[in-house]
Amino acid sequence: MIIGFIGFGKVSKNLLNLIKSDDITFITSAEGRSSKTIENIERADIEVLDTFKEVSIKSDILISANSPKNALEIAKRYGKFAKGIYLDLNNISPDTTLEINKHVENLVDGAIIGKIDSDNPILYLSGLKSDELLFLNEFIETIKISDNVGDVAILKLLRSTYTKSLSALLIESADLAKSYGLEDEFFDILSLTEGDDFKEKSLSRINNTLNSSKRKSEELEEIIDYFDNQELIMVKAALKKLNQ
Amino acid sequence: MIIGFIGFGKVSKNLLNLIKSDDITFITSAEGRSSKTIENIERADIEVLDTFKEVSIKSDILISANSPKNALEIAKRYGKFAKGIYLDLNNISPDTTLEINKHVENLVDGAIIGKIDSDNPILYLSGLKSDELLFLNEFIETIKISDNVGDVAILKLLRSTYTKSLSALLIESADLAKSYGLEDEFFDILSLTEGDDFKEKSLSRINNTLNSSKRKSEELEEIIDYFDNQELIMVKAALKKLNQ
Repeated sequence: MIIGFIGFGKVSKNLLNLIKSDDITFITSAEGRSSKTIENIERADIEVLDTFKEVSIKSDILISANSPKNALEIAKRYGKFAKGIYLDLNNISPDTTLEINKHVENLVDGAIIGKIDSDNPILYLSGLKSDELLFLNEFIETIKISDNVGDVAILKLLRSTYTKSLSALLIESADLAKSYGLEDEFFDILSLTEGDDFKEKSLSRINNTLNSSKRKSEELEEIIDYFDNQELIMVKAALKKLNQ
Repeated sequence: MIIGFIGFGKVSKNLLNLIKSDDITFITSAEGRSSKTIENIERADIEVLDTFKEVSIKSDILISANSPKNALEIAKRYGKFAKGIYLDLNNISPDTTLEINKHVENLVDGAIIGKIDSDNPILYLSGLKSDELLFLNEFIETIKISDNVGDVAILKLLRSTYTKSLSALLIESADLAKSYGLEDEFFDILSLTEGDDFKEKSLSRINNTLNSSKRKSEELEEIIDYFDNQELIMVKAALKKLNQ
């Protein structure tokens, strides 16, 4: 079996190491790639072809792992050459996934949840052809969500809906506690029901959110846009909170 | 040492069992009490006096554990007779606590967090005289928050601020996931970061909240009233969500 990569950054590099096997040949190309990516390629056990067109034609599974903003362009350019499965691992919206689906025959919508270089990353898949990728369970926990391309992207948004709104709630509650000089006690009393790591985890969430509140706001806006047929009272409040 | 109880329901009954000791005499009265309470008293190892006035006069520590709506009335009636510490364990607002403080000399504001009949309830205390109750650590984990009567009541409100708003967020997020047929997957994917018990705990929160949404709404209104000098975007959204 041949697995081809378009894009060879952190995700691809680590994925290759996870699924290394005598039965699998990995291929990619250095065509138009950055020096950082070429360095990744040189260090990996992977065959380098001249063009991504060749990579696309030869792969049984073609993996696109690029920046979200290039995902559609790459699908448009190479999707038509892919005869096997096209696995899109870019962090894109459900709408972009559906757009990509117009240019690619056997699209599988994927996401790696948990850090790819951690002990237990999980590969989520959706799309009719996901079944044919379940053999990856031998190397990385692989879960098929549904036959519907886009469901993994929706699931990622649902996850963000919760975690980003939770961060906004933590910011509000902890600030309130702080204004009464009871911040430590607030975390302590909640640890009793929320788990021993509540304080550490919450402070890390609060700091992450405050340090990139512009990006988090944009992500909340995308969520509200995508789910625009729903009222989303809490999510809209979270956006307002982050823009405060 | 003599510990007196005004009110002998679940909290008092269990507290007596926890702090039973040869050095402590427990007293109460059946004056005007319900048959259920009298039954509790008869089953307990406690001395029964004719009136609560006598109980108040004789106690080194007088514990008021009644319904929230009677707390102030009881403090007004018996507080003046209490020469020792008056420990109020009723689930009352910070304002009621401060009102009670006008009628009671040595008020300590207390709350038991965690179920009283569980393995690890914790007794939170605030007020100048809390120090004199720290000997209770021998029987139940006892934490002094501060010298300020009312701080325990505020801490309880802060805790509610978080947990009730979190429930509203869970309701919104889970409903959204359900509308895409991805409710199970939503809980599964969040369990990876929120802990294995995320689903069970969240569903229990959602159900508790939906089953008593009127009461939860009232509690959120009290929180918003009390903290009226703060903007509380998330809490107000939670109230709106529950009233939907």
